[in-house]
Amino acid sequence: MDGFSFSTDVRIRFAETDAQGIAHHASFVVWLEVARVAYLAAHAGGYQAIRDQGVEALTTEACVRYHRAAYFDETLRVWARCTDVRGARFRYEYRVERAGELVADGHTLHATVDRETYRPTRVPAWLAEAIARAESAAG
Amino acid sequence: MDGFSFSTDVRIRFAETDAQGIAHHASFVVWLEVARVAYLAAHAGGYQAIRDQGVEALTTEACVRYHRAAYFDETLRVWARCTDVRGARFRYEYRVERAGELVADGHTLHATVDRETYRPTRVPAWLAEAIARAESAAG
Amino acid sequence: MDGFSFSTDVRIRFAETDAQGIAHHASFVVWLEVARVAYLAAHAGGYQAIRDQGVEALTTEACVRYHRAAYFDETLRVWARCTDVRGARFRYEYRVERAGELVADGHTLHATVDRETYRPTRVPAWLAEAIARAESAAG
Amino acid sequence: MDGFSFSTDVRIRFAETDAQGIAHHASFVVWLEVARVAYLAAHAGGYQAIRDQGVEALTTEACVRYHRAAYFDETLRVWARCTDVRGARFRYEYRVERAGELVADGHTLHATVDRETYRPTRVPAWLAEAIARAESAAG
Repeated sequence: MDGFSFSTDVRIRFAETDAQGIAHHASFVVWLEVARVAYLAAHAGGYQAIRDQGVEALTTEACVRYHRAAYFDETLRVWARCTDVRGARFRYEYRVERAGELVADGHTLHATVDRETYRPTRVPAWLAEAIARAESAAG
Repeated sequence: MDGFSFSTDVRIRFAETDAQGIAHHASFVVWLEVARVAYLAAHAGGYQAIRDQGVEALTTEACVRYHRAAYFDETLRVWARCTDVRGARFRYEYRVERAGELVADGHTLHATVDRETYRPTRVPAWLAEAIARAESAAG
Repeated sequence: MDGFSFSTDVRIRFAETDAQGIAHHASFVVWLEVARVAYLAAHAGGYQAIRDQGVEALTTEACVRYHRAAYFDETLRVWARCTDVRGARFRYEYRVERAGELVADGHTLHATVDRETYRPTRVPAWLAEAIARAESAAG
Repeated sequence: MDGFSFSTDVRIRFAETDAQGIAHHASFVVWLEVARVAYLAAHAGGYQAIRDQGVEALTTEACVRYHRAAYFDETLRVWARCTDVRGARFRYEYRVERAGELVADGHTLHATVDRETYRPTRVPAWLAEAIARAESAAG
């Protein structure tokens, strides 16, 4: 996938479908989160490691464009990349594919806050560096 | 409803349906929780009040029997009663109805724990008394 | 609310919270849907009426911006308006408030399709007119 | 695991946690379904194959006992076995473990119905046989 070097697969659960017979659109928002968590596990020691250091990453925006319906038991590949780490903010972009076909794409924005005070706090340097390494490898 | 004096209504959301065209069975477990929260709001100052006093109520068992399918946009009435408050445990029983017709019934078991240590702690006396008052009124 | 004439209230369920202690961001996507369904019930005979006429409304885009965290048991007011009904497409805009304070805003895009073939089909005239009436009343 | 020959792993998603900081109890009901679907994929051609033959399997009862809390990002192993295939009914039993430690157990009951009429229909012979083979292998 052009510009993406990381992906994770999700299998559509029956509970994630709706009475239109397709995966409910809110399910995709959860799958993007699954991809972020897997990305951080692969590149930065995991999201729990970040939380353990007193930092929470809040989601401040989530946008998904749905191009094709997806169905129960299908396997979707969720490509994710982290871009624009700046101060206390970062951005993820996503492409969701089924056998190479675009099903959805989107982005999320995030803000890092102190876990106790919920005040904005800079993205920790080690995390910003881990992301920079991951994305430069994606070249 | 025989033996029940409290109920709350839920309207079935589209997101709660599945590809069988009916409300997904896990949705009912959430609705039972909605009924517990409403029950505590009506009788005991609300669940948040309990949490604010350093007590969490964990769910230790949840059982639902499904008698009829339920559909998008239907309004279900969830009857709830609290029974058997003993030590650090209590039990809820439920009937879920649609226009007087039984859709599901079930029960949940709960344990009260200290919010910091997660060790079992007796159901606070004021809560046990509020429940006793509520249920004796149901007589 | 400027430009909005319709709203519906949702009470945040415990199941909708996450380990950050706040309402999970995907929950908002479900609440926007709850507001759309309530809007159609108020203005156009309900979403089920639309489905009964052989039309499904697919969600083709969903975007939410989160301005403040929301918490268990809070009541949120979800303002919704339908804009830009064109051909087989329409758009909703939303503001989610807590006691008059902005918690989130966003929009969704939708496409109407034939329920059997899933091919695009124009928004039915009666529905477009019901929406136009609703929104002109909002003026 | 004594008496179980099939298991599937689930990784706890952030969206599946709640404000108690643990996996929400309704999430387990979804994981049991994930295990049933994986079991049928391993032993009987998949649940979609069953649906494709005009049969739906409804859930008529779901019970879960929670023994320990489970946390974000943990991997749980869900053991499942199908027992008591009789007429139009069958039963699953489950154990949910984390690193060999019991986290939850439970069962579900199911009824097979004709996909068009939703009338009870016998569990198809090929499915009953596939289940019998799977479970005798477990002996």
